[in-house]
Amino acid sequence: MPTTVPALVTASAGASFERSTIERRDVGPHDVEIDIAFAGICHSDIHQARAEWGAGIFPMVPGHEIAGIVTAVGDDVTKHKVGDRVGIGCFVDSCRECENCLAGEEQFCLKGNVATYNGREYSGEETYGGYSTSIVADENYVLSIPEGIDLDVAAPLLCAGITTYSPLKHWGAGPGKKVAIVGMGGLGHMGVKIAAALGAEVTVLSQTLSKKDDGLRLGATDYFATSDPETFKKNRKRFDLIINTVSADLPVDDYLSMLTLDGAMVFVGLPENPQSFRVFSLTGGRRSLAGSNIGGIRETQEMLDFCAEHGLGADIEVIGADEVDEAYERVIKSDVRYRFVIDTATIPAPAA
Amino acid sequence: MPTTVPALVTASAGASFERSTIERRDVGPHDVEIDIAFAGICHSDIHQARAEWGAGIFPMVPGHEIAGIVTAVGDDVTKHKVGDRVGIGCFVDSCRECENCLAGEEQFCLKGNVATYNGREYSGEETYGGYSTSIVADENYVLSIPEGIDLDVAAPLLCAGITTYSPLKHWGAGPGKKVAIVGMGGLGHMGVKIAAALGAEVTVLSQTLSKKDDGLRLGATDYFATSDPETFKKNRKRFDLIINTVSADLPVDDYLSMLTLDGAMVFVGLPENPQSFRVFSLTGGRRSLAGSNIGGIRETQEMLDFCAEHGLGADIEVIGADEVDEAYERVIKSDVRYRFVIDTATIPAPAA
Repeated sequence: MPTTVPALVTASAGASFERSTIERRDVGPHDVEIDIAFAGICHSDIHQARAEWGAGIFPMVPGHEIAGIVTAVGDDVTKHKVGDRVGIGCFVDSCRECENCLAGEEQFCLKGNVATYNGREYSGEETYGGYSTSIVADENYVLSIPEGIDLDVAAPLLCAGITTYSPLKHWGAGPGKKVAIVGMGGLGHMGVKIAAALGAEVTVLSQTLSKKDDGLRLGATDYFATSDPETFKKNRKRFDLIINTVSADLPVDDYLSMLTLDGAMVFVGLPENPQSFRVFSLTGGRRSLAGSNIGGIRETQEMLDFCAEHGLGADIEVIGADEVDEAYERVIKSDVRYRFVIDTATIPAPAA
Repeated sequence: MPTTVPALVTASAGASFERSTIERRDVGPHDVEIDIAFAGICHSDIHQARAEWGAGIFPMVPGHEIAGIVTAVGDDVTKHKVGDRVGIGCFVDSCRECENCLAGEEQFCLKGNVATYNGREYSGEETYGGYSTSIVADENYVLSIPEGIDLDVAAPLLCAGITTYSPLKHWGAGPGKKVAIVGMGGLGHMGVKIAAALGAEVTVLSQTLSKKDDGLRLGATDYFATSDPETFKKNRKRFDLIINTVSADLPVDDYLSMLTLDGAMVFVGLPENPQSFRVFSLTGGRRSLAGSNIGGIRETQEMLDFCAEHGLGADIEVIGADEVDEAYERVIKSDVRYRFVIDTATIPAPAA
């Protein structure tokens, strides 16, 4: 029998969030039931709740930065037990058979993985995300949150953390490497923390200097305003890796000019418009433009373990269920330091 | 005392080539004097002779695909001796001190290397290229052409060969890798030969199927017309590496859709216009757009040795000095299979 659980639901594209209920499936033999404690608000929640990335499946319950406690496990579950601290990120299943799944890169599943919300299970059932009090998922897509990270600051790691950790690792950020993080938002502030913990020299490139103190506190050694044309001259041929976390249009050639030989500019922010570049900007230093998309399950666990070891969590503002609509507006204005996290205990409708 | 030598000279941007003379410097202690036998015609010769890449230094003697025989060496020369078969590529000097030069990547010299023509020595002297009967250059920028490659088919290797060899090696073309070569011109036909010799599975993507027989003969296993939209569907997520040798504008996203996870599309052709891409095309498979520019001296020698070992030279049409203007027109129309090579013995003005 499915279980009815409280959730924050948006009925149609751009509609306000309302307290309501959804059904979660029975705990199957390989499933884990999780009492959700916190759910982060990712910018992509907003894009999807407003149907900016396609029609969307409504009613919708966003949320793919989920942290909580295991409350039940199926008979065949071996990875998690009742009482464990766990998390769920951007997907809750994948085909498990394609070459990318077999390589642990389930984010690139060739069949298409099952998004945590605004998606469909392979059975056809709609998926509902973390703006809820409970969720049921296959144990293989549930991560362990190590002791040493509180659940509230851990939640955003499931998307913002892995989205920056994966390209930093893939493109070799570490001692002796110069890394620039473009944007000081939810993704960017985690990029700074993780790149610094990996041992790289970190520079923040942000539109203004308004968050400079925070950037330096989080581990950057330099902080430049991209509104100042001098920034591009001062940092010419400096960086081995530039991670772009913003979804605004960028003067790509200006950014490429800051890369050293064999340097890469990696997009994790997703501008909707096509971006343009001159081929000479690439050939002039065997440079690359690349893109990265979250990470696989194995790497997400590695990221959580790394963050626990280095004492890293997100910088957050915890909000209640009533504040989500307002939080969306503030995210759009970059008015959050640096991630909103919903205390899901506030989701059930108060007793009348 | 400088030596006066015959050369094919263009007096101003777009002017016809005329038989004339230029001066070559005295053979210094580290210099090699070369009797040029053949000089290839590269598309970039045309761009520069017509001042399409900036003003250009006129009068100009193009040519950076040079093959010949050593006729004199300076007192301190150790790498070459009189009678050696040698070549010169796109540059004849570099700073030798920057990190890129020290890494053997002189093509990315931070001071700027000295182009074989349409450039200036660090002393300020103009450089003149291979459309001539003789040249003097520092021994460190002179390559050895192994026995087993004739000088005429070796000449184009100095640019077209290294321009394709370097990215194929850098991005790991070899057994088990699927490589697509875009364009079947001077660069493309060498790309096919070298990629096949490296053991990769090679596909040609050309505007039409007019050169299909040649493509298969040179080592490709598949050949598709990019004028057919089906080509992009049939080859979806197929290639590990796409080397683009054409300088026309491309629908970059369509090409990216043919890359597998972690695949790279590398530009060696140089479109003049900005190219555009959607960020989702990159993030959807951790794909890269990159650029590569010829190669360093060490790698150019490695390429020549590889080509000799595998019996590879360019497919050429040998022409005389009178035919260069016409050859330029034919290169622009892609009407050459696959590289024009000037027999420099035809350059001296015939006796009256």
